[in-house]
Amino acid sequence: MAKSRMAPGEEDLAPRYRDVRALSEALAAGLSDADATVQSMADASPAKWHLAHSSWFFETFVLRDHAADYQPFDPRFAYLFNSYYEGEGPRHARPLRGLLTRPSLDDILRYRAHVDAALLAALPDMGAQAQTLVALGLHHEQQHQELLLTDIQHLFSINPLEPALFDAPNDMPAALPGPIHWIEGRQGLVEIGDDGRTDFAFDCEGPRHKALLHPHALAHRPVTNAEWISFIDDGGYRDPAHWLSDGWAWVQAEGIEAPLYWRHEPQGWTRFGLDGRKPVNPAAPVCHISLYEADAYARWAGARLPTEEEWESGAQNVAPISGNQLDGPTCPRPQATDGGAALTRMFGDVWEWTGSAYRPYPGFQADEGAVGEYNGKFMSGQFVLKGGSCATPRGHVRASYRNFFYPHQRWQFTGLRLAKDL
Amino acid sequence: MAKSRMAPGEEDLAPRYRDVRALSEALAAGLSDADATVQSMADASPAKWHLAHSSWFFETFVLRDHAADYQPFDPRFAYLFNSYYEGEGPRHARPLRGLLTRPSLDDILRYRAHVDAALLAALPDMGAQAQTLVALGLHHEQQHQELLLTDIQHLFSINPLEPALFDAPNDMPAALPGPIHWIEGRQGLVEIGDDGRTDFAFDCEGPRHKALLHPHALAHRPVTNAEWISFIDDGGYRDPAHWLSDGWAWVQAEGIEAPLYWRHEPQGWTRFGLDGRKPVNPAAPVCHISLYEADAYARWAGARLPTEEEWESGAQNVAPISGNQLDGPTCPRPQATDGGAALTRMFGDVWEWTGSAYRPYPGFQADEGAVGEYNGKFMSGQFVLKGGSCATPRGHVRASYRNFFYPHQRWQFTGLRLAKDL
Amino acid sequence: MAKSRMAPGEEDLAPRYRDVRALSEALAAGLSDADATVQSMADASPAKWHLAHSSWFFETFVLRDHAADYQPFDPRFAYLFNSYYEGEGPRHARPLRGLLTRPSLDDILRYRAHVDAALLAALPDMGAQAQTLVALGLHHEQQHQELLLTDIQHLFSINPLEPALFDAPNDMPAALPGPIHWIEGRQGLVEIGDDGRTDFAFDCEGPRHKALLHPHALAHRPVTNAEWISFIDDGGYRDPAHWLSDGWAWVQAEGIEAPLYWRHEPQGWTRFGLDGRKPVNPAAPVCHISLYEADAYARWAGARLPTEEEWESGAQNVAPISGNQLDGPTCPRPQATDGGAALTRMFGDVWEWTGSAYRPYPGFQADEGAVGEYNGKFMSGQFVLKGGSCATPRGHVRASYRNFFYPHQRWQFTGLRLAKDL
Amino acid sequence: MAKSRMAPGEEDLAPRYRDVRALSEALAAGLSDADATVQSMADASPAKWHLAHSSWFFETFVLRDHAADYQPFDPRFAYLFNSYYEGEGPRHARPLRGLLTRPSLDDILRYRAHVDAALLAALPDMGAQAQTLVALGLHHEQQHQELLLTDIQHLFSINPLEPALFDAPNDMPAALPGPIHWIEGRQGLVEIGDDGRTDFAFDCEGPRHKALLHPHALAHRPVTNAEWISFIDDGGYRDPAHWLSDGWAWVQAEGIEAPLYWRHEPQGWTRFGLDGRKPVNPAAPVCHISLYEADAYARWAGARLPTEEEWESGAQNVAPISGNQLDGPTCPRPQATDGGAALTRMFGDVWEWTGSAYRPYPGFQADEGAVGEYNGKFMSGQFVLKGGSCATPRGHVRASYRNFFYPHQRWQFTGLRLAKDL
Repeated sequence: MAKSRMAPGEEDLAPRYRDVRALSEALAAGLSDADATVQSMADASPAKWHLAHSSWFFETFVLRDHAADYQPFDPRFAYLFNSYYEGEGPRHARPLRGLLTRPSLDDILRYRAHVDAALLAALPDMGAQAQTLVALGLHHEQQHQELLLTDIQHLFSINPLEPALFDAPNDMPAALPGPIHWIEGRQGLVEIGDDGRTDFAFDCEGPRHKALLHPHALAHRPVTNAEWISFIDDGGYRDPAHWLSDGWAWVQAEGIEAPLYWRHEPQGWTRFGLDGRKPVNPAAPVCHISLYEADAYARWAGARLPTEEEWESGAQNVAPISGNQLDGPTCPRPQATDGGAALTRMFGDVWEWTGSAYRPYPGFQADEGAVGEYNGKFMSGQFVLKGGSCATPRGHVRASYRNFFYPHQRWQFTGLRLAKDL
Repeated sequence: MAKSRMAPGEEDLAPRYRDVRALSEALAAGLSDADATVQSMADASPAKWHLAHSSWFFETFVLRDHAADYQPFDPRFAYLFNSYYEGEGPRHARPLRGLLTRPSLDDILRYRAHVDAALLAALPDMGAQAQTLVALGLHHEQQHQELLLTDIQHLFSINPLEPALFDAPNDMPAALPGPIHWIEGRQGLVEIGDDGRTDFAFDCEGPRHKALLHPHALAHRPVTNAEWISFIDDGGYRDPAHWLSDGWAWVQAEGIEAPLYWRHEPQGWTRFGLDGRKPVNPAAPVCHISLYEADAYARWAGARLPTEEEWESGAQNVAPISGNQLDGPTCPRPQATDGGAALTRMFGDVWEWTGSAYRPYPGFQADEGAVGEYNGKFMSGQFVLKGGSCATPRGHVRASYRNFFYPHQRWQFTGLRLAKDL
Repeated sequence: MAKSRMAPGEEDLAPRYRDVRALSEALAAGLSDADATVQSMADASPAKWHLAHSSWFFETFVLRDHAADYQPFDPRFAYLFNSYYEGEGPRHARPLRGLLTRPSLDDILRYRAHVDAALLAALPDMGAQAQTLVALGLHHEQQHQELLLTDIQHLFSINPLEPALFDAPNDMPAALPGPIHWIEGRQGLVEIGDDGRTDFAFDCEGPRHKALLHPHALAHRPVTNAEWISFIDDGGYRDPAHWLSDGWAWVQAEGIEAPLYWRHEPQGWTRFGLDGRKPVNPAAPVCHISLYEADAYARWAGARLPTEEEWESGAQNVAPISGNQLDGPTCPRPQATDGGAALTRMFGDVWEWTGSAYRPYPGFQADEGAVGEYNGKFMSGQFVLKGGSCATPRGHVRASYRNFFYPHQRWQFTGLRLAKDL
Repeated sequence: MAKSRMAPGEEDLAPRYRDVRALSEALAAGLSDADATVQSMADASPAKWHLAHSSWFFETFVLRDHAADYQPFDPRFAYLFNSYYEGEGPRHARPLRGLLTRPSLDDILRYRAHVDAALLAALPDMGAQAQTLVALGLHHEQQHQELLLTDIQHLFSINPLEPALFDAPNDMPAALPGPIHWIEGRQGLVEIGDDGRTDFAFDCEGPRHKALLHPHALAHRPVTNAEWISFIDDGGYRDPAHWLSDGWAWVQAEGIEAPLYWRHEPQGWTRFGLDGRKPVNPAAPVCHISLYEADAYARWAGARLPTEEEWESGAQNVAPISGNQLDGPTCPRPQATDGGAALTRMFGDVWEWTGSAYRPYPGFQADEGAVGEYNGKFMSGQFVLKGGSCATPRGHVRASYRNFFYPHQRWQFTGLRLAKDL
């Protein structure tokens, strides 16, 4: 039985299943067959692949074992749409995903309908173990919803025509948020990790355990674009003293001078987003930065990145719906001029880089079987991000959620919040 | 005035224009938007790109200068669909062609219709220079018709589903052609190059000039798959003594063991083609081999490759419609059991590698202006191929035609005919 | 004033300076001019470079500022022998170090003598800050002594002649150590980091801070070659279930089947060392493994790697001279059949991989100035190793010492000790 | 019997053997053990390797088969010092040659003495076939003498200290040669290739055969540095119209702006040579250019490169000792202000790029056995150079000599002479 956990209230899964699956298709509604096929870089996957792979997950881990007489839509899809589950046999090489012009987007939508019909028919008779796998599959699909958006944004960004997936007006002028207020965090022993009170948690969020916090404070809000432009203008990208050694090598090798998707034009900085190319909004949180950039900025600012324990402890009393999540074409949106009396925008807006390497929590045990390849095997070389972004589906994120990426990656909606020692 | 030449009989270009343009669209009729968008390797281009670039050629070199008040369909296309004409300004990088999911295939078909309408309207009033450029553009488009097919074949070949562009039955059993007969060629001084009697010739085919032929003979037919299998079975791919040094390095680095698209299966060799995966037909000419393989085979067989002068001299009395050209889904087709009294299958079937490097003919001068970048600038590192293939449009090839590719390339319909010294 | 710390007892530095500097030259005594010049891979440096760079350190950080009228031996050496100190200006690219056939090894020995004379002359008049920098330079040089040995071993290993730097008999037959005994560690809050009681500590070892340990035990000894061969024989290198995702990709891409320097021969496994190629000694600790291999082995064995806090806490009561350090040509040596009542061989023999990413301790501040680039800027992507090896100079290691390498690197003397949750 | 040919007058080989072998060692006399060991790029080889490989040639092709009871100096050298003779079994990979710090330079000199003693002892009793192989080995060694110099020059050039192998004063001021005079060449059928009247010829120089020359003229002298600077100043490296397509890609990818070893300094252009860094001498032939550069210059100048047949025909009446060959440290030297009535400096000074791809002469047959791998297998992708250079040993070059390199290579002493159609 998988340790990824589902709470009792979640037991009638059918409506939630329908909602999540429908959202994936809604997000892809503006895509052509070609848009959904192409892979713009090895880190990204085609939209069609996201739509198919999330269905393969249900087919492989639920229907195959828990739905009597299930007939696969096409037996060749097991090879085409396995992502990285070694336990499930060989698979199509990741960098070649974008060469699969067949099956078509329409074929994949038929594949989804086939899986949906079978799963919804089987669901009433499923036991708890199978239902837990369905819940896992839905959270898995939500992750791919965010990836579908980040990957399409990347694909469109390298098209000289710079198409937009969504229409949106330019941001309204917004007052700049005031200066950072430092919110003192708890000290000493705190409890961290999945507390069993949310509807669901991945295996890597547990077990619940004690952690020791040293005296520290967190900024009440993320760093803004206006602040980032000050870093650029101060030569932040050209002074090695701010940078981790690997980060400086990356800056030099890639010629990095600004966040991903930014361009310096005569009238000022612009950025590319799902709504096309627009002026950089000074009041919005900075987005599409690597861990290296986040760390360099923090050092330049005389601060540091929070640890994941500091961040999670601080977030435990903040409602996870407090920020902008997947609810509009502009992403991220300008910040209000929050008062600064408490931590704001911990959830949504931008994934916040922490200074913590993604490693197992004390006592961590991966789920058993192929599903157990889900999180544990990625625990080297990556850093933890917290809090979700403006592209994270509502209901998906929580304080104990641990996202992880390599320190040079920045096509996700990544930003930062400063921390300091007290 | 371009030196690429058009004969007087060609003067009423409109019907020919309509036919050539229609054929491009017919060849692409079986492609989805995604099929037409993806680029399977740097050497290949998307079908959509071929359809657009051949239209860009007319727009740039004919309509812009020779059609009053011509309005470009989309001014951004000049950047997107220039191939390599430095004189026409910057262009989209070749390896990124497959990332352009927009404009869509439908957009490109509209672009073609726009160009066609403008060109056909302007054609009656065009002078000789402009008409010559139109003729050049049609021959250019025919080249891209063949490339469209070879590029789609490559794309489909790396899809594990191995889709077919055309339906076709398996080849009928065919009698193996008999042994090679050696046809003695002319000796001494011969005339080579564009003789002004064909409807059209590219600049690199001229000027007509004398060449000196040493005593030699050509095989009356190309090498067959059956003969190639003997080469494989004799360890031809494992013995460095047969290979050019660069070729042996290529065999080792790439793990080459058979022609491109061949696979060894329990029941024997199969090959992938535009009609899907089928058994290798022993009676058909071997196809999809590199110059390195052709040269190694010839050495193994105690022969050599013909020079381009030997080949062209031999072909001067052979009708260019004698072989299989673009007229059916199976490509190449089995060879008849020709008698062997004369050179057969010089045209069509497979492009025949010669042992001649692609260098300028004595007295060669490139066309002037950007059109002059068409042929001359490729004259290093490539070898000449002669005779056209089963994917070459009818009416496109002639004895003086000089095709050229790098010695490791083999996704074209490439084969060989042996030669020897007398 | 640098935070790298030196204790009062260390104040008469001259004899220690002479000893350390002499050892470097003794280690290089068996090298030819060519041996000392060549760089066998980008991770390694030439022996000549190690001898010069450790002198450059004294010249740049001590003599330039703290010795009146010091004349550099050759002003061009500042460019040639800077390793990575961005604050000290441009430097010769690391992968090109092995192309510097001039200056010769003899030139470098003269350079060392020049620096030594100046430093020993200036030492009596130096203040505490300069003396601390001298002490730092000596510990820095000891690090390069170990690197000199690992780099020469790598260079000699890829020479088909497989020369030995040192002569040594084959290991005497040794009884295999008995099974692992699990030594329970402290729980709850412990103190970690530089405690100010050793003669010296690097900046990254501090500040002293509290850490929280969860119930755990450590193996009383490192994993042996005999145990590692069981892992190999059980298919450990071929089963992705044991491996981190990055580790499995590395195994596949590099074709890894055994520790570095091992070779399977008809009579069994051999390994290459500074004493040439010899049979693998089953009783010796396994050596030259990556973090990926260590982690896979631990998972296969039903255990895990220790955290650096667990390891350091366990080592705090073990004398740092308990194992084999730089004192003989065979490295590492067979283990005695220790009783198992306590942690043994924590120091020397092999650097032990921990499961902890190399990140700053709470409250860490780097040294100021260019010297401060010494440790902090490497805090991404690397893992901590503890305890020193058979190539670590005596007097160099201590419980708080934090060594760090990337998870794929294994040309250092790296091994592992198992841990488990209680 | 090898077809590489030796004339009767050459039969007493002993004095010539001694001279050639001694020159190799004299050229290497200024090298340290490290200088002789390091390989600066994959195209180059270590000096030690050249000294050893040329000895291996005698050991393998002469002593092994033609000297009774010959004992190899070290049987492992057969693996280490085979260059590319597949017929002689596996060999050490070319890019790893520079990692062999053992055997030392002294070891190699002992190896040479061992081979010399055995060969000189056996020579009196050798038959014609063996003597022909000795003559071939001497010409082979002369080729490696030139390569030894070009490879050391490259190695020293990338050392920031820029050491000189030879001392030499700056060039004396020299009058610029006057403008080019065009010397009309023969037309119609001429005889080309080894005529049997020189002491020796490689297999690829034959057979003697007729070639057809079209009306043309050659410049009476090579292009000078002064003329090349005009090309640079006219933007020659920045205008794609002058360049072959592959050449332009190379210019862009490598950032080429001038010949190899040139540097623009405040006082003007300098170049690095075996005599160190010196000002570019305007009167000297331009040197260290690629075929791409030569071809671009010729097009810019309204001319073209000569074919190898034109060049050889023109050279047939010029004495091969007319130019500067290996006889001084400055290479190449300024040109005299030759009158222009005849072809001058055809031999020596710089290897002259031709526009001819290196392909077999009509009727070419390679030597049999492993020796036959000497020339024929390189006949793809390379261009022919003629005439020898200032680093070619006296007595080595002749009109029929065919040197060959890839079009991007320029670390040899390569220049050009213009040709044009008449």
